[in-house]
Amino acid sequence: MNSLVLHPMKEVRVIVPGEHQGFVIEIFDALHISGYTIIKNLAGKGHHGLHTSHTMFDETESRLMIMTVVSEEKVAPILAGLAPLFGRHSGVMFVSDVSVSRLEYFSESSKK
Amino acid sequence: MNSLVLHPMKEVRVIVPGEHQGFVIEIFDALHISGYTIIKNLAGKGHHGLHTSHTMFDETESRLMIMTVVSEEKVAPILAGLAPLFGRHSGVMFVSDVSVSRLEYFSESSKK
Amino acid sequence: MNSLVLHPMKEVRVIVPGEHQGFVIEIFDALHISGYTIIKNLAGKGHHGLHTSHTMFDETESRLMIMTVVSEEKVAPILAGLAPLFGRHSGVMFVSDVSVSRLEYFSESSKK
Repeated sequence: MNSLVLHPMKEVRVIVPGEHQGFVIEIFDALHISGYTIIKNLAGKGHHGLHTSHTMFDETESRLMIMTVVSEEKVAPILAGLAPLFGRHSGVMFVSDVSVSRLEYFSESSKK
Repeated sequence: MNSLVLHPMKEVRVIVPGEHQGFVIEIFDALHISGYTIIKNLAGKGHHGLHTSHTMFDETESRLMIMTVVSEEKVAPILAGLAPLFGRHSGVMFVSDVSVSRLEYFSESSKK
Repeated sequence: MNSLVLHPMKEVRVIVPGEHQGFVIEIFDALHISGYTIIKNLAGKGHHGLHTSHTMFDETESRLMIMTVVSEEKVAPILAGLAPLFGRHSGVMFVSDVSVSRLEYFSESSKK
């Protein structure tokens, strides 16, 4: 594989309270997402939800961002997996276009 | 609102010396931007400005990144609000396309 | 230069084990990339490479992300410069579209 080629993929970032890190990781594992990077101890102010009167993030609550890169067909399953968490707790998911070196990093199958 | 739909928005990231965090937050507040996330204690090397002979960021100076997600029409007002800061001090603003779950997080109005 | 205009550029993010920070910075310096921001002490799980049986990132290994913004023609030289590192060690590079305020920050020439 030519290491000098960039491959279009989807970057997924999930911001959740620190206590829900394990829930997100379990979804990634179930979807055979082979790697991710975590930025911990983020500060910030919460968003007010449309249907809730409380601040989505407590200002004193630790939150973190979990980043991964996946093929496009993984985006919907991740969102579906996170829906129960988002339904009960704070958290948000961002999706953006990204090109990556080393496509093999992001492939769950080593046989391809 | 269908929580499994992703909505196109603009991600805005502002990198400034730590001492200017409050200035950026005040602009966000004035524009009714209801949430943001901060990554503190970034390291890095400064950029040399075109019209200045000094390094924009002192290498020993703490800087931070403030991230938010807004609708496209908020981008220009944020940039206008930051102009006085950027005119006198170091700092830069990045804008990129992002899709988000939970659009209500990023809506300043709960009536929509 | 109108500080209220946003300019299309490429954001490059490189994630490597902390010990290879210097290697990446040397490539940036050689390409006259005048500034970058580093997020240190990232956590995460490694990616398994296609051609390797070992985890690309040791889970206990510190890694960091080095971010910069460049014009499009710099992307390929960065990737070429990183190839020797990626050939022997773990690491990955992401490229995405971004618009920036203050284009002069990202211009290596002060004469333009």
